[in-house]
Amino acid sequence: MYDVDKIRADFPILAREVNGQPLTYLDNGASAQKPKAVIDAVTRGYAEEYSNVHRGLHFLSNLSTERYEGVRETIARFLNAPSADEIIMNTGTTEGINMVAYGWAAPRMGEGDEIVLTVAEHHANIVPWHFLRERQGVKLVWVEPDLDGSIPPEKVLAAVTERTKLIAVTHCSNVLGTVVDVKAIKAGAGDVPVLVDGSQGAVHMPVDVSDLDCDFYAITGHKLYGPSASGAIFAKRARMDEMRPFMGGGDMIREVSRDEVSYNDPPMKFEAGTPGIVQMIGLGAALEYLMDIGMDRIAAHEQALAGYAAERFAGLNWLHVQGHAPGKAAIFSFTVEGGAHAHDISTILDKKGIAVRAGHHCAQPLMEHLGVPATARASFGMYNTEAEVDRLVEGLELCHKLFG
Amino acid sequence: MYDVDKIRADFPILAREVNGQPLTYLDNGASAQKPKAVIDAVTRGYAEEYSNVHRGLHFLSNLSTERYEGVRETIARFLNAPSADEIIMNTGTTEGINMVAYGWAAPRMGEGDEIVLTVAEHHANIVPWHFLRERQGVKLVWVEPDLDGSIPPEKVLAAVTERTKLIAVTHCSNVLGTVVDVKAIKAGAGDVPVLVDGSQGAVHMPVDVSDLDCDFYAITGHKLYGPSASGAIFAKRARMDEMRPFMGGGDMIREVSRDEVSYNDPPMKFEAGTPGIVQMIGLGAALEYLMDIGMDRIAAHEQALAGYAAERFAGLNWLHVQGHAPGKAAIFSFTVEGGAHAHDISTILDKKGIAVRAGHHCAQPLMEHLGVPATARASFGMYNTEAEVDRLVEGLELCHKLFG
Repeated sequence: MYDVDKIRADFPILAREVNGQPLTYLDNGASAQKPKAVIDAVTRGYAEEYSNVHRGLHFLSNLSTERYEGVRETIARFLNAPSADEIIMNTGTTEGINMVAYGWAAPRMGEGDEIVLTVAEHHANIVPWHFLRERQGVKLVWVEPDLDGSIPPEKVLAAVTERTKLIAVTHCSNVLGTVVDVKAIKAGAGDVPVLVDGSQGAVHMPVDVSDLDCDFYAITGHKLYGPSASGAIFAKRARMDEMRPFMGGGDMIREVSRDEVSYNDPPMKFEAGTPGIVQMIGLGAALEYLMDIGMDRIAAHEQALAGYAAERFAGLNWLHVQGHAPGKAAIFSFTVEGGAHAHDISTILDKKGIAVRAGHHCAQPLMEHLGVPATARASFGMYNTEAEVDRLVEGLELCHKLFG
Repeated sequence: MYDVDKIRADFPILAREVNGQPLTYLDNGASAQKPKAVIDAVTRGYAEEYSNVHRGLHFLSNLSTERYEGVRETIARFLNAPSADEIIMNTGTTEGINMVAYGWAAPRMGEGDEIVLTVAEHHANIVPWHFLRERQGVKLVWVEPDLDGSIPPEKVLAAVTERTKLIAVTHCSNVLGTVVDVKAIKAGAGDVPVLVDGSQGAVHMPVDVSDLDCDFYAITGHKLYGPSASGAIFAKRARMDEMRPFMGGGDMIREVSRDEVSYNDPPMKFEAGTPGIVQMIGLGAALEYLMDIGMDRIAAHEQALAGYAAERFAGLNWLHVQGHAPGKAAIFSFTVEGGAHAHDISTILDKKGIAVRAGHHCAQPLMEHLGVPATARASFGMYNTEAEVDRLVEGLELCHKLFG
């Protein structure tokens, strides 16, 4: 049994009020709230066990190192990576994808080489490739979603040419909720490496990078109920071996002299300087929390919620939901017929204690494709309930009444 | 009056024991402990006030944004920067210097262009420049410290040629404790920009970037009694205007389409993706804590401690301390005559509850210059006491007895 009340009780902030109303937090796509297990791990990390890692021999340094390196194993388990050595710890998907762009793509792509990506990508999986376009003449090849928001793998594969050097695709659209069959894309891509933006995907379903067979899989800790600026990227050993270092500094070197530098073995080669020790320990606690409950059960809960929400929204004929792909995640972007701008919707809902996001959701090419300047977005998480869907619908009815 | 007992009581971890002994934490050069004010700010950030920043309109998002952006003002005040818009928030000095290397230096330096740096730099202020050497043929020009560890500004300036495009220098050596007169360097450097690695400097003395007139000043939050992976870099507006973006993603753009991208105004242009919201809020709390006590008073306390330690060490004729520059910070790297390797010293001291670091301290060119493979290092912070110096001396005497 998935006991959502018990889960809610694990998240201190869900007990608070906003504008005199109980908080209905539906902004999980932007960032998720943190369970007590995570907050306690962070507090303990600072108050009882803190030290820098790796380069010390004293008790606290050894303890910190053990805790920190243990998180690498936890992440590997969470993603079913073949080895913890294929996990690079970082501050999240933005850093992960930039590392691939600077460290792997930049040295091996020139004028006219192509990167295939979808119009539904988040800016984190667009702008680093635009850098390569601006700086090295790389060509971005765009795949449009179908009318219902689906992104069929064959459509992505049809965009691959002899010049394609990388396919960079989201696992789950942060606007449409569309889940992309990245396994089929990889299976059909031949020698072309596949990078998956798992910023949303890893939150809403079990992820098995061994099964997906993707080359890179980036995750964001703060969306996974973990601390700010925690995250990781899975990179296949073969890709790591091809990759030059991204940031330079302590810990990522083997030897430094005035004239030369040699680098540490992966994954350390890609982790420069003192890492985000305590927030990574917090991310470890978040992933253990998720695995204890079970990602499959979380996914089932959210799917049921998505079904219920879709049903309720279908009854509002003035509400335009973007994206109806089968099996979509519980992420709903919408506009309201009449004068209500997405920002108005957000502001009115906020008065009811309902947190949704309004804007372009860092997905401007998709907004342009959809022909809307902005949407409001309700994105659900493991702790949301049908009663909250009802509260959202009530709030939307108020918006429609005020602006309709 | 500087009440060190009262300050110690603010740091929960200082009450703990290590190996059955009270903790004597002398590894502040690697990372400092956190006061309750910081830990509480982090806990509150997650448990009561958490949301993503900037792109939301709901209550919690506005609150998070206000707290987060408030930290930019706090950092500007801490460094006496002319404007908070000249502060880029990041994960620390490593990221800060890499951003300058990739965003400012790489596009404007070619084969034979020179960067002047000292042999006493930390790898964070070496390896990013080695990248430019490896990738673009930039020449690294090294300045050696004097015998006593001093780094006279005129020696740095003597290394400047017509090809010099940047001077990259530490404010305070993490091994020798030497404080570098970066103001004099900047004053004599003409048009050559000066980057200051403030990772240690900002911890041990008041810093006024307006007075120093440096172009870049990088700080590390976790050494400043703040959270893991918090930090910032001051960059003069004129340098920011010359700098291309480092990482790409959300928040740093103005507009993204399939064919084009335009960037946000600085400093946002240099902050891609969801930032380290809660740890930056924690860093704000740390800097407020430091400013409440007064950096000048902290510096005075540490100077007194450094004087006391130097005096006690002078009595141990088998102890070789590296670096005796006048006004040096309370950072002591040493070796012990006889068979005791730096790692042995650290291990023996650890049994007494004394945390020091052993190794190359991410400063291999300096180790080579000093002719030692490694040192043990005791680095003091705002909460250390003369009694702890005495405890360290006792521990060192034991090392000498065991290995002497």
